[in-house]
Amino acid sequence: MTKPLHTGATIGILGGGQLGRMLSVAASRLGFQTHIFEPSANCPASHVAQAHIQADYTDTDALRRFARGVDVITYEFENIPTTALDLLEAERPIHPGRQALATSQDRLTEKLFLQDLGLQTAPFADVTDAETLEAAIARIGAPAILKTRRLGYDGKGQARIMTPADAPSALADMAGAAAILEGFVDFSHEVSVIGARGSDGQIACFDPGENVHRDGILHTTTLPAKLGASQRTDAVLIAAKILNALDYVGVMGVELFVTPQALIVNEIAPRVHNSGHWTQAGCAVDQFEQHIRAVVGWPLGDGSRHSNVVMENLIGIDIERLPDLVTQNTAIHLYGKSDAKPGRKMGHINTVTGPAA
Amino acid sequence: MTKPLHTGATIGILGGGQLGRMLSVAASRLGFQTHIFEPSANCPASHVAQAHIQADYTDTDALRRFARGVDVITYEFENIPTTALDLLEAERPIHPGRQALATSQDRLTEKLFLQDLGLQTAPFADVTDAETLEAAIARIGAPAILKTRRLGYDGKGQARIMTPADAPSALADMAGAAAILEGFVDFSHEVSVIGARGSDGQIACFDPGENVHRDGILHTTTLPAKLGASQRTDAVLIAAKILNALDYVGVMGVELFVTPQALIVNEIAPRVHNSGHWTQAGCAVDQFEQHIRAVVGWPLGDGSRHSNVVMENLIGIDIERLPDLVTQNTAIHLYGKSDAKPGRKMGHINTVTGPAA
Repeated sequence: MTKPLHTGATIGILGGGQLGRMLSVAASRLGFQTHIFEPSANCPASHVAQAHIQADYTDTDALRRFARGVDVITYEFENIPTTALDLLEAERPIHPGRQALATSQDRLTEKLFLQDLGLQTAPFADVTDAETLEAAIARIGAPAILKTRRLGYDGKGQARIMTPADAPSALADMAGAAAILEGFVDFSHEVSVIGARGSDGQIACFDPGENVHRDGILHTTTLPAKLGASQRTDAVLIAAKILNALDYVGVMGVELFVTPQALIVNEIAPRVHNSGHWTQAGCAVDQFEQHIRAVVGWPLGDGSRHSNVVMENLIGIDIERLPDLVTQNTAIHLYGKSDAKPGRKMGHINTVTGPAA
Repeated sequence: MTKPLHTGATIGILGGGQLGRMLSVAASRLGFQTHIFEPSANCPASHVAQAHIQADYTDTDALRRFARGVDVITYEFENIPTTALDLLEAERPIHPGRQALATSQDRLTEKLFLQDLGLQTAPFADVTDAETLEAAIARIGAPAILKTRRLGYDGKGQARIMTPADAPSALADMAGAAAILEGFVDFSHEVSVIGARGSDGQIACFDPGENVHRDGILHTTTLPAKLGASQRTDAVLIAAKILNALDYVGVMGVELFVTPQALIVNEIAPRVHNSGHWTQAGCAVDQFEQHIRAVVGWPLGDGSRHSNVVMENLIGIDIERLPDLVTQNTAIHLYGKSDAKPGRKMGHINTVTGPAA
């Protein structure tokens, strides 16, 4: 296990979006300083960090300067170029570790990993060309979704196949990228477990939240989720199994489809997760502080929830509701982004709806 | 009323301690940027702000540069030199306003102001020399406390007078500074109301918290406070009366002594207040965000409390309890101060003890 860092140490964060911003604030609450590595100027995290190294992930000098200025490195997104990781790993510890990134950067690798753990996933097939796609549709059936194996998020890099006739255009959408065909799962709703594992192997999971998406982007997370007692236990055990298998250090988001028969793993994210923002209002130690605690080798919070919460994302022009939102008794979190593009996450609100039940 | 500032605007904060730090974080949650004016290097607020103008309050160029770089100015402490205020006021709006500062910077002015409002205070007398002190003791009696009229906080600039014989040494302690003699009040406990008034005159007060001091420094604040329903109402009405009389914009701390007969005003602070830190864990909009909302002309949060909370300060070597604290289910706030001097506020913890009751 890592030697715990003293408060006052510096944490390096790869990525300067809203997750990096909220990680920075959580780190500052514990007396840590943060340095942000992010190619774009005036990024959300830079507003609350002590330093912003603005450089590209191909800039080896900047990467080395960044690494040598911090005590430990973490990240807000999973698609960090491997070459950058190689360089950074040689300089400073990175949490969560390489295995988690390698697994979650590739949808096929992730599915196979989950399958090996004996966990249920949507039916899937490796797709490399028209022939393998045809075979995949024949086996899995339609409707199904064709997804690039890498670099997909918030519904990007995906094409629906309603009938076999859609195959050619769907394949064209992949633009030659390696892909995976996923069958549809007939689920009643989606929940996610925000799990954390410390450098000592201690595991603490937050209560599962129920997610509602709009246009492929998370819209709300509601606590408590509609789950029976045994489903709630199963959800947490699934997250724990994944965390242990990856010898994971940090916070992970695990999305689960709920069916009458089972909990089916949709996907995992090796980082703090949008569906865990509710913890800012519902728990003594939120997912951002929990992640920082794991990364610096501190004991984790116990994850217990004191309140019921509804988290709602503010996407694009949702931000125009601000004048109305400020008159309501809700906790508003804005990310300091200047222009509200469609589909862009501008902020979120957490509303405490009562004591934990 | 002030025209509301748009999220993204910049707020200037005078003072870079823990209050400025937590104001900065609250401002960032609403998408604002902050600039800190603070003479000392590496101050707590500078770690989470976009700029730190490190200069003295006599540096008129720096003050002007600071003012012209922000849209509105507020502060974390009341003892801002008048000359600096004159310069800043000419450049940008300052909230809370001059009247509140003038009143609270001088214990005698403050007592007379409260008296004029028909509020009860401890018996007091203006002391300028041995003769006036002798007369004051004769009228108020001993024990009593001699305090400098200006620049006193956390028990500094105070001398106890147990018997008239203590008068000469107590007067010597004042080192020639104008002073005020305060009689003791026989109170059962102290509560404080964190009140807020918006630029539109809207008032929202947080539930009174019960304070326990150690060595003249706040030790704990507990919600709810031991108060009857009518006392709770009176406490809030007293705060509202003070806020309105000062045409106040921002958050104010009002300390009250509780006696069986009455609520006696101990002192007021024209800023966010240590006894309001509990709001970070107990309310949707905490005192820091409430202050920012007032200063930028936004509607206030309603101040309602969803949980019972105990706030405890970490003073000096209390910080050595950290390894133990991190294993408890409590929200830890550290201020990023390097050395733990005796009496120095290093952080605080908020523990949710149950749903609001």
